[in-house]
Amino acid sequence: MHFNGYLFLMDERNLKSMAVQSLLKRVKSKVISREEISELGIKTDTDPEAAKIMGLKNIDGGFVGENCGIMEPDLLASYYVRELENMGGVEFRYNTNVTRLNLSPRTKLNFPGEPFIWQDKIIESIETKSSELFADHFLLATDVWTSDLTSPLGIDPFTQPKKVQVFQVQSNGIVEMMKKKVTGEEDIFPFTILPGPSIDLRPDPKSRTFWVSYSEGIGRGFSLEENPMAEADYYSNNLYPVLREYIPAFEDARIMSSWAGYYSMNNMDGTYVLERNMNLSVVTGSSGSGIMKADAAGRLASSLYSGKEKAKLYGGAEIRVADLGITTRRVDQETLII
Amino acid sequence: MHFNGYLFLMDERNLKSMAVQSLLKRVKSKVISREEISELGIKTDTDPEAAKIMGLKNIDGGFVGENCGIMEPDLLASYYVRELENMGGVEFRYNTNVTRLNLSPRTKLNFPGEPFIWQDKIIESIETKSSELFADHFLLATDVWTSDLTSPLGIDPFTQPKKVQVFQVQSNGIVEMMKKKVTGEEDIFPFTILPGPSIDLRPDPKSRTFWVSYSEGIGRGFSLEENPMAEADYYSNNLYPVLREYIPAFEDARIMSSWAGYYSMNNMDGTYVLERNMNLSVVTGSSGSGIMKADAAGRLASSLYSGKEKAKLYGGAEIRVADLGITTRRVDQETLII
Repeated sequence: MHFNGYLFLMDERNLKSMAVQSLLKRVKSKVISREEISELGIKTDTDPEAAKIMGLKNIDGGFVGENCGIMEPDLLASYYVRELENMGGVEFRYNTNVTRLNLSPRTKLNFPGEPFIWQDKIIESIETKSSELFADHFLLATDVWTSDLTSPLGIDPFTQPKKVQVFQVQSNGIVEMMKKKVTGEEDIFPFTILPGPSIDLRPDPKSRTFWVSYSEGIGRGFSLEENPMAEADYYSNNLYPVLREYIPAFEDARIMSSWAGYYSMNNMDGTYVLERNMNLSVVTGSSGSGIMKADAAGRLASSLYSGKEKAKLYGGAEIRVADLGITTRRVDQETLII
Repeated sequence: MHFNGYLFLMDERNLKSMAVQSLLKRVKSKVISREEISELGIKTDTDPEAAKIMGLKNIDGGFVGENCGIMEPDLLASYYVRELENMGGVEFRYNTNVTRLNLSPRTKLNFPGEPFIWQDKIIESIETKSSELFADHFLLATDVWTSDLTSPLGIDPFTQPKKVQVFQVQSNGIVEMMKKKVTGEEDIFPFTILPGPSIDLRPDPKSRTFWVSYSEGIGRGFSLEENPMAEADYYSNNLYPVLREYIPAFEDARIMSSWAGYYSMNNMDGTYVLERNMNLSVVTGSSGSGIMKADAAGRLASSLYSGKEKAKLYGGAEIRVADLGITTRRVDQETLII
């Protein structure tokens, strides 16, 4: 983990908001000035004409979350795989798509058409293309692929797949920007969120590029392709016009690579949904917070499966499993999905 | 409207529940005895073997909602059509499927690919197979067909289509049953809900048949066909085995006709969802309560469109529009979906 900080660029109104004022007191954070922002290579005053057309805001300061930063997701995932393999009793099957959950009566009569409405039901097995796997309990942590498995049973996934694209962008100016910092011991540019259309820029220290992304609201439909691709037009028409207004180093930048994936959006409140039906536990709706909430989600999943009322999180805080359920839900709206 | 009553057949535990005891005090209702239920032609003691296999319950009494009954939905719909035509300014277009909502920038630049992420957006028009219709505001009351229209825009319908089948069933015994009653001035059998698998029986006085239906939970997938059909196997394997245990008149009954349709299920709490985005209002999720809540839903839709905070219902009670919204939702769980 690099604690290079999260830098939210803001107009005066947002800087003075209750949310920011309260965060300044509660978490390790600070506000940086227009001058400090200019030194990072970011324009604080946007062209009035462009601002009007594109909904840009002037930057009056930056809120820096210092206890924030960037990590290497693959290193973290590898760590957990190794730990589980060392524990024993866990078998990983890579490239094994589950195609179906088999619903059965708890007590079989062996009549065609089972299970009937008047029979107690369980998930007896799951199918892959080449095998059928049996278990006493099944836990799905399948996010955007949940719907295809649970909808045929009449279990609502409460999530919608939303495509998100990432463009890896570089220029000489960006290489220079990478060395600047606002917090932390290392010279790494902060993870930065623009104030107008809230495009986010994740520095990648190794390649000295920005990973540019944007979490779309209305205008990006819900859909799921097997091999989603980033769209070059999406960068040039949607992201680039905004980026070059705020950051001159993007003017002559080029795309080094790009990729796309899906957020499993819970559009109610933007966080995880936990459900248990019969011998099936479902954890879904990470809503873009895969890595950041994965440890907490795993602990909750474990409690859901074991039938425990609460889960103890890494920091020691306890959270009620039912609070993440549907009919008993009690969570705050997630306002920052990047 | 025929006030023939809703008859919920119950075991002792449910009869003595808080819910029933509280309803008895609040609404015009009564409890009828095992003897009165037997006289209706319903067996109160089920065969122990069958009960075990099929999850049947003995009937210890019946809760009768007297201020309930059955109506002719087509007469009610015709009334509203006439009233609206008399008001003027309303034009009905039957057999006109809306295929698409057209999202546009509020201020057009006429660049290909509009609207971009940095543009303010509105719904400019809707498309049918043969025409494009323009308006300042659009209101969708399209239930299970909402998803196809709003999902391409990234607006969550918060509903899933669930197929519901109705079988019109008759026998000599059923013709006799039709004349019996538990409440009301007319001799019409009550709308009856069984205590085991809660199959419901709606008497149709004109044809002297029962309309038999069941609201399925797990086991009936979410899906939407253009012309859903009732499945004969569904009656014979799922409904009939339960019906004949409770009501001997079903033993030799035959299906006169059958049909199928969809409930637009809001699986969070089983009632309407109201959303407004840009110049688009969406009212969906009737969850099986089309006619019964339609008047209230219409009043709420009107307030949603007009931007009013509250809607006044038929009885004079007021309800906050935001209480039916997603992020500000505050409704009780609907427990009785039949």
